[in-house]
Amino acid sequence: MAGAIFGSLLTLSTFGESHGPAMGGILSGCPAGLALDFEAINLELSRRKPGQSAIVTQRKEPDQVKFLSGIYQGVTTGSPIGFVVENANQKSGDYDHLESVYRPSHADYTYEKKYGHRDHRGGGRASARETVSWVVAGAIAKQIIPQVRISAYVSAVGPHEYSGPVDDKALELVEQNVLRAPDLAWAQQMEEFIKSVRKDGDTVGGVISCQVHGVPLGWGSPIFDKLHANLGKAMLTINAVKGFEYGSGFAGAQMRGSQHNDLYTQDGRTQTNHSGGIQGGISNGEAIFFRVAFKPVATLMQAQEVLDKEGNIKTQSGKGRHDPCVVPRAVPIVEAMTALVLADAYLMDRTTKI
Amino acid sequence: MAGAIFGSLLTLSTFGESHGPAMGGILSGCPAGLALDFEAINLELSRRKPGQSAIVTQRKEPDQVKFLSGIYQGVTTGSPIGFVVENANQKSGDYDHLESVYRPSHADYTYEKKYGHRDHRGGGRASARETVSWVVAGAIAKQIIPQVRISAYVSAVGPHEYSGPVDDKALELVEQNVLRAPDLAWAQQMEEFIKSVRKDGDTVGGVISCQVHGVPLGWGSPIFDKLHANLGKAMLTINAVKGFEYGSGFAGAQMRGSQHNDLYTQDGRTQTNHSGGIQGGISNGEAIFFRVAFKPVATLMQAQEVLDKEGNIKTQSGKGRHDPCVVPRAVPIVEAMTALVLADAYLMDRTTKI
Amino acid sequence: MAGAIFGSLLTLSTFGESHGPAMGGILSGCPAGLALDFEAINLELSRRKPGQSAIVTQRKEPDQVKFLSGIYQGVTTGSPIGFVVENANQKSGDYDHLESVYRPSHADYTYEKKYGHRDHRGGGRASARETVSWVVAGAIAKQIIPQVRISAYVSAVGPHEYSGPVDDKALELVEQNVLRAPDLAWAQQMEEFIKSVRKDGDTVGGVISCQVHGVPLGWGSPIFDKLHANLGKAMLTINAVKGFEYGSGFAGAQMRGSQHNDLYTQDGRTQTNHSGGIQGGISNGEAIFFRVAFKPVATLMQAQEVLDKEGNIKTQSGKGRHDPCVVPRAVPIVEAMTALVLADAYLMDRTTKI
Amino acid sequence: MAGAIFGSLLTLSTFGESHGPAMGGILSGCPAGLALDFEAINLELSRRKPGQSAIVTQRKEPDQVKFLSGIYQGVTTGSPIGFVVENANQKSGDYDHLESVYRPSHADYTYEKKYGHRDHRGGGRASARETVSWVVAGAIAKQIIPQVRISAYVSAVGPHEYSGPVDDKALELVEQNVLRAPDLAWAQQMEEFIKSVRKDGDTVGGVISCQVHGVPLGWGSPIFDKLHANLGKAMLTINAVKGFEYGSGFAGAQMRGSQHNDLYTQDGRTQTNHSGGIQGGISNGEAIFFRVAFKPVATLMQAQEVLDKEGNIKTQSGKGRHDPCVVPRAVPIVEAMTALVLADAYLMDRTTKI
Repeated sequence: MAGAIFGSLLTLSTFGESHGPAMGGILSGCPAGLALDFEAINLELSRRKPGQSAIVTQRKEPDQVKFLSGIYQGVTTGSPIGFVVENANQKSGDYDHLESVYRPSHADYTYEKKYGHRDHRGGGRASARETVSWVVAGAIAKQIIPQVRISAYVSAVGPHEYSGPVDDKALELVEQNVLRAPDLAWAQQMEEFIKSVRKDGDTVGGVISCQVHGVPLGWGSPIFDKLHANLGKAMLTINAVKGFEYGSGFAGAQMRGSQHNDLYTQDGRTQTNHSGGIQGGISNGEAIFFRVAFKPVATLMQAQEVLDKEGNIKTQSGKGRHDPCVVPRAVPIVEAMTALVLADAYLMDRTTKI
Repeated sequence: MAGAIFGSLLTLSTFGESHGPAMGGILSGCPAGLALDFEAINLELSRRKPGQSAIVTQRKEPDQVKFLSGIYQGVTTGSPIGFVVENANQKSGDYDHLESVYRPSHADYTYEKKYGHRDHRGGGRASARETVSWVVAGAIAKQIIPQVRISAYVSAVGPHEYSGPVDDKALELVEQNVLRAPDLAWAQQMEEFIKSVRKDGDTVGGVISCQVHGVPLGWGSPIFDKLHANLGKAMLTINAVKGFEYGSGFAGAQMRGSQHNDLYTQDGRTQTNHSGGIQGGISNGEAIFFRVAFKPVATLMQAQEVLDKEGNIKTQSGKGRHDPCVVPRAVPIVEAMTALVLADAYLMDRTTKI
Repeated sequence: MAGAIFGSLLTLSTFGESHGPAMGGILSGCPAGLALDFEAINLELSRRKPGQSAIVTQRKEPDQVKFLSGIYQGVTTGSPIGFVVENANQKSGDYDHLESVYRPSHADYTYEKKYGHRDHRGGGRASARETVSWVVAGAIAKQIIPQVRISAYVSAVGPHEYSGPVDDKALELVEQNVLRAPDLAWAQQMEEFIKSVRKDGDTVGGVISCQVHGVPLGWGSPIFDKLHANLGKAMLTINAVKGFEYGSGFAGAQMRGSQHNDLYTQDGRTQTNHSGGIQGGISNGEAIFFRVAFKPVATLMQAQEVLDKEGNIKTQSGKGRHDPCVVPRAVPIVEAMTALVLADAYLMDRTTKI
Repeated sequence: MAGAIFGSLLTLSTFGESHGPAMGGILSGCPAGLALDFEAINLELSRRKPGQSAIVTQRKEPDQVKFLSGIYQGVTTGSPIGFVVENANQKSGDYDHLESVYRPSHADYTYEKKYGHRDHRGGGRASARETVSWVVAGAIAKQIIPQVRISAYVSAVGPHEYSGPVDDKALELVEQNVLRAPDLAWAQQMEEFIKSVRKDGDTVGGVISCQVHGVPLGWGSPIFDKLHANLGKAMLTINAVKGFEYGSGFAGAQMRGSQHNDLYTQDGRTQTNHSGGIQGGISNGEAIFFRVAFKPVATLMQAQEVLDKEGNIKTQSGKGRHDPCVVPRAVPIVEAMTALVLADAYLMDRTTKI
């Protein structure tokens, strides 16, 4: 089935609705012999967790992963890794008002019309709670390729873009502020901005940037699974994402070839990196970087028009616990999906030469 | 193999190097009983063909497709459609100077290092000549979903963006100018601009926009094959593409939820379309639209530094026949890849309900 | 990953080791709108359950499936159906004697050498307990194609083959005897035979036959997913299976064309059915039938030689609870895998024509 | 699409009808750096070629493969290997009498009813001419795993089974007789038998056995892509195959566990090989062997009843050039499909451990 599986050799299948008993998945193709760092997995889960600060949703999700298979005495066996994360803190009652209405810019209407039937509670299958499974799988994927360092961060909130350079030192700041920005002062400003948006009962979009260091030359495929195409698809799979660009991106479209070309140094590296670390779909050993655009969260804490099943437009005020700005919490999700794509590309590259 | 196949039910496998005997592919899963319009296929091929005007490469590629199977008495049989397009006008001698050098921002270096061996002539497998097979397959895909109208056009050349509205009337102008723009005056200006770039021995990037009308509600998948994620991957598969955005795109990241949400009308349509025709990964019946960023062509008609196999930086002047700006010729390629994604989604949707 | 997924449109991913916390899987691609008959699912699970009679293992496995997603108010939503079956009655201590030895004709040695590491308890991933997930998925698959009747039965035990005709009336007897044979007297004899084998501390193989009625003309694919090839692969996926034949099978190899050809009747049906209901990989509307050979269970309740990790041959007597003859319990497994293949073929057939 | 592709990492897509312009395929995932032995490929093609002796069809098919991509200077580049084999000796007129009739035990009727439309000439897509592409791909696959020796041979013709031992010396005789048997005297008898069958205007089935030496321990997957399940599917994909058994096969179902278990020697090898070289779906380093049953060719050179499109039963005598017994020519096809499965398993095994 289209959509049943993510990846080629390292594959993830997932299931779960936000208000069902549990989310979960099966990660297949993880090489045998990997001594898992479970603390690192839990750390990623806690990074994704709602309720971490005033600028994200106040829902509490304990999000403890329970591994059901594929690991023996802490080491992967090569068998599929099944896991579940229980939906402990469901308040389905919160969603009763949604049973017969379609919220604007949600998946309510398209699901109902496509499938003729849906679990409306908390967005059901469309809920971003799905990403908890991706974060579990991505945390394992990161451990398959320990030489690779994946660093995502918030680079824009609404109309405010961070314009400073982002070096290793700046990346270290990311986990030191609730915004997950590479600059503490800017993070502070953005936190205030998001609070003001929330006070309006509104939400705001943003951009996550991601730098990847340590990918060696040679990962990716020339035509139908170009490394950046797989990264792009992975990012566009994340809820609320509206755009993806890598290397020079949309700005590159404005440039001339003589500016854009990355001239070589004698050791085969490049003097500039407009290519974003990927040439012809294959990593070239330079840093990979890309940007991901997130639209504002569609659920507002203000009254807005909804459509009901009888075709009436009604006014409904938002309920439940929602993020005024999704990007801080999406940082570990961007990293997880990146890790899945790269670990897959790493395994595939093992089959390249005779 | 990762990268061997494009699509889930309607699948395309391709082969070919620009200076081998032929390009070609196998389109599987095309439903039986489709009376093919071969003229329409040839028209798409001629739209992609180099040498159509002063602003694109002057290489002549006759590009006649020869169907080898899957069609009997002009009608598809449900069997795989094999086809070849011969590489008639190869001038391999043009590329002798490239055998031992790696051109900047080409795939030369990554291919050589990944595979240890490459066909350097004309970019080999990395050549955009590959897209001739996509255009053949896409032209058939369009006929599987005749109710859908896919209209791509050039919306930016280098720093110059077309800012006017693009309605049906504007779309009709696209094939009336060599730039493939929705406005004849702007097209004229851009043609002059590209000529000036070419005079400098330089190249320039650009943006292609695409509108898709007629997709009914319900195509796409909720999680791992979201319709926009598959479109994004398809676009990022095209040579030189650096970015993809759909609906509100990167601009949407700057907006507030109260602005961005697409409120319903009573008939289930939406008053605005920031969603770009897709909600939760599934088409909602509104127009689908997206933008694709192309970097400037890396092969310049001016001297530039290359790396040779011995690790020396040398100066080399461009040779051969190349496009100063790729976007006019990429318009039918964008449409072809869009058609493949949509026809696949259409077939998949047939299996949705009991 | 090879081996991560079973099926094309209706896909099953599974996980679990016999002595881990749970077995489970994800069934994707099940059409939306199917009101599930949960009793039917539980019935299949109880048919597979060990401990049902004196001739099968006395392990007790309650085998209650817990559905975690994809079903809302008893009806499938089109989302992946995640499920787990807990491993309630594990006695891992039973397997301590196996930690450092490789039992003959088990997967112990190949797993250990391939993966460098294994969960030895109860066969780990190689345990036939895996089939509990297939039975869950197969029970749902049966409901997708209610017009199809899949009837497997034991047709040989060791050297004793049942030679009588097996018509609808005989098929009704299958669930009335612990052997699952289509003849009560023969079943009684075989039960005695198996008891005598068990008394010897030995095991014995057998054959399961399967008849499928109600498959319409047109399911299957011409070349790489011939319906019988998919059925054959499904059967060879079941633990202990050594052979598969359909229609005339190996006996057909002895025949002449003039005997073997199935002549038509005027309504397009055939007078004989050596083809076994499939011609050119596609169902022809006649009954599909095939036979599956199972080797004797490798775990004996008598002393036999094992190899230990240090390369010593040691004598070890069998422990634990094992089947003297696997075929009675494998009947619902054969049916489940058949149902998965057929429901997949049914969905695929929906995409055949324009 | 189900059926579009064969294999997981080393993948084959094919196309072609027997009376279209050409057969062909794309082999993807072949590792880069393989210096191809083209003579070996041609040798396999000539082994498959019709018209080699009095006991096979007298059609002449020159069967020259033309490689279109993926090979540069005789060495694989890692890019897809596209190839065509022209259908030079078509006599479509031979098949005019088939346009409106369905021959018994052919795919005529099922294709026509499934797809609503078919190329009737020479069986169209259902023709065994398809196997020419498999032989090309299999000949390359053999070169990916040169340490593996795949030896198929005819072991039964109609009711006559060869009962002698088949050691290395016997295998050397296989290419020395037109029957491809491991014993010259028996081959002579079978040749006479087949001639007598042909004189009757009839055809006869047979069995091909295959021994595979040199597969190291560790190829294959535990659950859904067991090595023997993939081999079984590959064999059942070959036209006219009705059954597959490996190791002890159907005879194993008659045995007791104490007889059947393969006891170890101290070096981890086994004293017997009822397992057929595969345990738990994974090769154990012993010889792999299996048997494949072929039904008699359905096209007879005698009058037989056919059904026409109007629903009339008519008598028609066979025309064209057909094999009285298919097994001698199917020997290289069995080997080719085996090679594809094994080379794929070899590549997959590279991704097993961290």
